[in-house]
Amino acid sequence: MGGDLGPRATVRGAAEALQLHPELTLRLFGPVDTLQAELDQLPLRLRRAESRLALVHAPNVISQAQKPSAALRSSHGTSLALMLEDVATGNSAAGVSAGNTGALMALSRRALGTVAGIPRPAISTAIPTRGGGRCYMLDMGANIESSAQRLVEFAVMGEVAARCVDGLAKPRVALLNVGVEATKGPANVRQADEWLRSLGNDLNYIGFIEGDGLFSGKADVVVCDGFVGNIVLKSSEGLARMLIERVQATFGAHWGSRLVGMLAKPALLRLKRQLDPVRYNGASLLGLSGIVVKSHGRAEAQGFACAVSRAVQEVRINLPCLLERELGQRSSIPWVASGPRDRGSPTLSKPDEFPS
Amino acid sequence: MGGDLGPRATVRGAAEALQLHPELTLRLFGPVDTLQAELDQLPLRLRRAESRLALVHAPNVISQAQKPSAALRSSHGTSLALMLEDVATGNSAAGVSAGNTGALMALSRRALGTVAGIPRPAISTAIPTRGGGRCYMLDMGANIESSAQRLVEFAVMGEVAARCVDGLAKPRVALLNVGVEATKGPANVRQADEWLRSLGNDLNYIGFIEGDGLFSGKADVVVCDGFVGNIVLKSSEGLARMLIERVQATFGAHWGSRLVGMLAKPALLRLKRQLDPVRYNGASLLGLSGIVVKSHGRAEAQGFACAVSRAVQEVRINLPCLLERELGQRSSIPWVASGPRDRGSPTLSKPDEFPS
Repeated sequence: MGGDLGPRATVRGAAEALQLHPELTLRLFGPVDTLQAELDQLPLRLRRAESRLALVHAPNVISQAQKPSAALRSSHGTSLALMLEDVATGNSAAGVSAGNTGALMALSRRALGTVAGIPRPAISTAIPTRGGGRCYMLDMGANIESSAQRLVEFAVMGEVAARCVDGLAKPRVALLNVGVEATKGPANVRQADEWLRSLGNDLNYIGFIEGDGLFSGKADVVVCDGFVGNIVLKSSEGLARMLIERVQATFGAHWGSRLVGMLAKPALLRLKRQLDPVRYNGASLLGLSGIVVKSHGRAEAQGFACAVSRAVQEVRINLPCLLERELGQRSSIPWVASGPRDRGSPTLSKPDEFPS
Repeated sequence: MGGDLGPRATVRGAAEALQLHPELTLRLFGPVDTLQAELDQLPLRLRRAESRLALVHAPNVISQAQKPSAALRSSHGTSLALMLEDVATGNSAAGVSAGNTGALMALSRRALGTVAGIPRPAISTAIPTRGGGRCYMLDMGANIESSAQRLVEFAVMGEVAARCVDGLAKPRVALLNVGVEATKGPANVRQADEWLRSLGNDLNYIGFIEGDGLFSGKADVVVCDGFVGNIVLKSSEGLARMLIERVQATFGAHWGSRLVGMLAKPALLRLKRQLDPVRYNGASLLGLSGIVVKSHGRAEAQGFACAVSRAVQEVRINLPCLLERELGQRSSIPWVASGPRDRGSPTLSKPDEFPS
């Protein structure tokens, strides 16, 4: 259920995902009448795999506007809570949602817990880079203020995901900063830089990267706190939207441009497909003791299917288990040797901090 | 002198600016031989105003790589220091530089001081928005960590600049955040929001804006700390560069596309001009007791001329004087009534924090 486009995108996306993965079975949580109505409208080509799709009735839905704290209090009978319960009991191997991000994060943490004592998961998503590659950014907004320790944990988790899920041999990991010299930036970023350097060959850490480096293809994993990550991601979406609008306006300006625009249409469509965030849809909630993938609220059916594919990849390699092992094994991370960690309260503090 | 493109862009840009402003006279600081060589190569159309261009010999130049702390120690005889001295003594009404940002900031502050007890100026620059407008962002990197008080000062300064320099009647001012609800974001941003609301009709404060709001045209001034501002600006530059590359690659992919590309060239050039940062080049160092404008390091002659035009506009209205008055008059800002301000040391602490 959910997403800005309602259940249609989710139901169709689920059906698309079943076509892509012959071994996959899916359980859809939501008001069954609504879900059944959408299923009845599926085009024929998507009906072949319907036998691998089950509906589970959830009378209530958490709205996009609801605060995480309110969602935690009144999650009973909601599609999100029932879905996460299904993952927590092991009945489902992973959960995918296009709903309220803050609620998803808060409920996931309560239902599944985290690995290796991590206080709160990080949201990781891929962005397209020059040369046709992609780069994983984290955190995209779950951790508004992040200590140096959290930034190092993000780096380790991002590296594991890029290496094990995407098969990169030695993912290049960078810290986002306002300059590349060790003296630049706020204290937590400089401290994280020092700690990441001390890990030596354990992690292919390439140092600081500036904002323009995000899209340069120089790094495979870029680490930042959730405040910066969320703002950078959303501003990039806003800029890309403005640029596409202007391209369209340029080719509609007068009859000559319109004619050229018609001729250029196939090329522009190819370009739009290349840049389409759908190709990279599916943000992982890294650090949970379970697999949860967030699909973009504006994603259509194909985008939702991509998010399901991401979850399938994470299930295949059992990502939470790998994260637990790799984070636990990092006894060479300086703060582990030097005393207790300032990880804050293990309870659900400040759930309102989640961006929606 | 300076800029990534060397003195040619600066000298030509200065000559372009003289064509634009018949009342303007300019003094160029740098090694006179180098400057004279560039002047000798000016095209004829730019020579008409040469009588309003004077050369001042400065034997040394601060490199783009030099740290602000080192620049402060060894600024003697550099074009930057001599130019700022000229502004400080009132011999020049404003200074424009395409050189090292951190050094410019540190030396400007030492040479000119700040208004209304401001500890450090903010860098403000304009970005294009949907619908063909523009939005001023500050701070773009001078203040890595900014208290709530600094954010409020940025808001006041940005509002004054947008109203008095750009002639907007009631500039809409927003704070950059990860959500629009009052509970979202870090403590300094939430506190600044509360204080800005308390200013009432004195300032057209419209609340929080998210990353995608930067380009939406919903705000005229967007305030954030220098860490976020610098990263957002540079990532936007990186994304725009990648998109333009892909448009070019799309139209060169095969002979059909190349043909269409040739036909589409005028439309694409128009688009590129529309998005050209040159149109908005010229970042103001707001809060100095003098007028200093930073031209983008990669700006060509036309861009440099835009930065000079920005300085001319600020001279016409005497912006530092307006800022002093408006910041001083804000006795309704809560912290003024409630005790001393946590403005930190008035000396040049941590000059290395400036991004280059």
